[in-house]
Amino acid sequence: MTAAIIRAKHRQAAELMRERGIDTWLIQFARETGLRPDPLGYLVGGSVTWPSAFLLNSDGRTAAIVATGDAGTFEQIGIWDVRAYLAGPREELLSLLVEWDPRTIGVTWSDSDETADGITHGMYRLLLQLLEGTLFADRLVAAGELAGDVRGIKLPEEVEAITRTVRLTEEIIERIEARLELGMTEKELQREVHGWIHEKGWKFSWDDDVNPMVNFGKPPFVGHAGPTDRDLRPGDVVHLDIGLIVDGFASDLQRTWYWRRPGEIEAPADVRRTFDAVRAALDAGVAAIRPGVRGFEVDAASRGSVEEWDFEEPKFAFGHGCGRVAHDGAGVLGPQWERYGSRPLFTIREGNVFAVEMDLEVPEDGGMIGLEEEVVVGPEGARYLSQPQRELKLLG
Amino acid sequence: MTAAIIRAKHRQAAELMRERGIDTWLIQFARETGLRPDPLGYLVGGSVTWPSAFLLNSDGRTAAIVATGDAGTFEQIGIWDVRAYLAGPREELLSLLVEWDPRTIGVTWSDSDETADGITHGMYRLLLQLLEGTLFADRLVAAGELAGDVRGIKLPEEVEAITRTVRLTEEIIERIEARLELGMTEKELQREVHGWIHEKGWKFSWDDDVNPMVNFGKPPFVGHAGPTDRDLRPGDVVHLDIGLIVDGFASDLQRTWYWRRPGEIEAPADVRRTFDAVRAALDAGVAAIRPGVRGFEVDAASRGSVEEWDFEEPKFAFGHGCGRVAHDGAGVLGPQWERYGSRPLFTIREGNVFAVEMDLEVPEDGGMIGLEEEVVVGPEGARYLSQPQRELKLLG
Repeated sequence: MTAAIIRAKHRQAAELMRERGIDTWLIQFARETGLRPDPLGYLVGGSVTWPSAFLLNSDGRTAAIVATGDAGTFEQIGIWDVRAYLAGPREELLSLLVEWDPRTIGVTWSDSDETADGITHGMYRLLLQLLEGTLFADRLVAAGELAGDVRGIKLPEEVEAITRTVRLTEEIIERIEARLELGMTEKELQREVHGWIHEKGWKFSWDDDVNPMVNFGKPPFVGHAGPTDRDLRPGDVVHLDIGLIVDGFASDLQRTWYWRRPGEIEAPADVRRTFDAVRAALDAGVAAIRPGVRGFEVDAASRGSVEEWDFEEPKFAFGHGCGRVAHDGAGVLGPQWERYGSRPLFTIREGNVFAVEMDLEVPEDGGMIGLEEEVVVGPEGARYLSQPQRELKLLG
Repeated sequence: MTAAIIRAKHRQAAELMRERGIDTWLIQFARETGLRPDPLGYLVGGSVTWPSAFLLNSDGRTAAIVATGDAGTFEQIGIWDVRAYLAGPREELLSLLVEWDPRTIGVTWSDSDETADGITHGMYRLLLQLLEGTLFADRLVAAGELAGDVRGIKLPEEVEAITRTVRLTEEIIERIEARLELGMTEKELQREVHGWIHEKGWKFSWDDDVNPMVNFGKPPFVGHAGPTDRDLRPGDVVHLDIGLIVDGFASDLQRTWYWRRPGEIEAPADVRRTFDAVRAALDAGVAAIRPGVRGFEVDAASRGSVEEWDFEEPKFAFGHGCGRVAHDGAGVLGPQWERYGSRPLFTIREGNVFAVEMDLEVPEDGGMIGLEEEVVVGPEGARYLSQPQRELKLLG
């Protein structure tokens, strides 16, 4: 399964390389990736200890230049032409480049897309040293955008795998809903969910400390702070942000409930109005998604809706890629702020999968209302991979 | 506990910065470190989503320039002067540099030490963009060696924490020894150990797939290949390589057993002789460790012993730092091979902690014999943190 997907992604990458005029792609040039996973590792299939080069040629040929101690892993996978070295990678790398003789060698870095920013500065300097005095030193080009395309345009089998993780996450959310009770603390709930996930052998799609994020009532910080000892009380908005990784594919979902006070039939008017504003902003953004539209345009549609409803401007982007990890890189459906670099300028393509989200605070200490869903881009627009939350769920 | 150790490491770092003439150290400049941990993260204390700069001044002042969504994490830790931004880090970074006015700004990269190679090439380019047109652009210097010193010279509380993980790993090894039985496969044993470790909430100190590495008899590949369906049989050498991370500190140990055939009292002569050669090489290396000696000299002492015993030259370095992770970077006790870069040239200092190891194959298909221990460098030489295996353990 894993090897088959990697092979399919290599075929897709070779095609995109030809589009972009990159003859050879040095997908990954890294060491100790068990310690620090390289974002391109999903095209490699295993981790390495020593400096290792993984190359793809636009005609489909592959080469893995690895130390003898790492060779076994890649011989087992069976998709790499393994060239093992004892002393260092220089000789094998140069002889391969002479053999393939690429006019351009793509190196994976990006100053705005972290999932396409593979090579460290030290390894880039080492690469220059290895190529010093050869004609290949002048043939290096940035392969960050290529890496973004390959990652961001999901194959059907990838969409299927993401959908499966989303389904399983929705089952966990149902289990959480059934478990909620007055007096339990945010930390207790998180601890319990950690137990469920570890038992299943799954992983969280971002730091365990803040996954799931749980807010009973108004959170002390907005953003990625961990759960507290705050207990669940009547009148609380309950906000959950959770993402899992199952079999290498990620989810990222938000759900919101309201725990009624004695005698209440529905949530207070300001809570309902905030929920409606969140849903409207989500709908406005999702409606704007289709091939050819740029990321910032989708964000603007959603941001405009928030403004119409007279809420404070959101401090986050409306959407981000979701796939191998929760924040899957490539384009962002966000405003053209400095911190997003050039990513909001990217053009949406069929096969992109996004997590789309909106969070708004209920005016005057009422808590946080957030919705987040996964969508895939088809020829006509976005299709939900999750079962979107359309109504505020009532508890108590 | 964590915050206290980080504060102590910052004090140590400030002193080493003054030694090296680095006025300000940009310890970490990274984004999405939950996805891809930065090796300097242990001096930071939390992960970030957006581009974030963590700076230490040689007078002890700190600054964390982070996006508003990440600010909560670092306000909670309490060791950072948090300067939150909404649009991007440029303005806060420049105003901080004007305030501190450093003559030199250390940036963390290294072409030979992966644990000191923090900044990615894309982030390095982004840093240059942010500083463009200011006088600070010309004040950047490499802080890789500084990072290696800070990481490699362990404080007493760090040595204590490593020792605790080593003890707990030894207890797991005892449990493995008790569990070994004829007919079980390498994969079954690994799966069972995974269950124990997950139950305790601990982590493995390298990739789970190959941790523990288990070899019943001769392994199909030498190096980091995963366990197979090979079952344990009489006459097998049983080789185990296991490392854990408990409370943020790592172990890396190897142990070897022999399962006797019916009627055998001891292991065959060639197995015994190989074990003795491994132990002799380990002893020769450990005896050569003391402050002021260089890494390659220790390796040479051990390598020379292997040669005296007439075994094939080892393909690995004799020792590596061990601490936050199993391969903890900084210096290496290894030969001056290309793949180790300048790391074998480093000079051993008091407080360094090493995993020292030797593996030799029993001639003619007899299996793999390996020993690995942890030592700390004191004023006179190495002291074991593990309880070293001195005799081949017999089973069956």
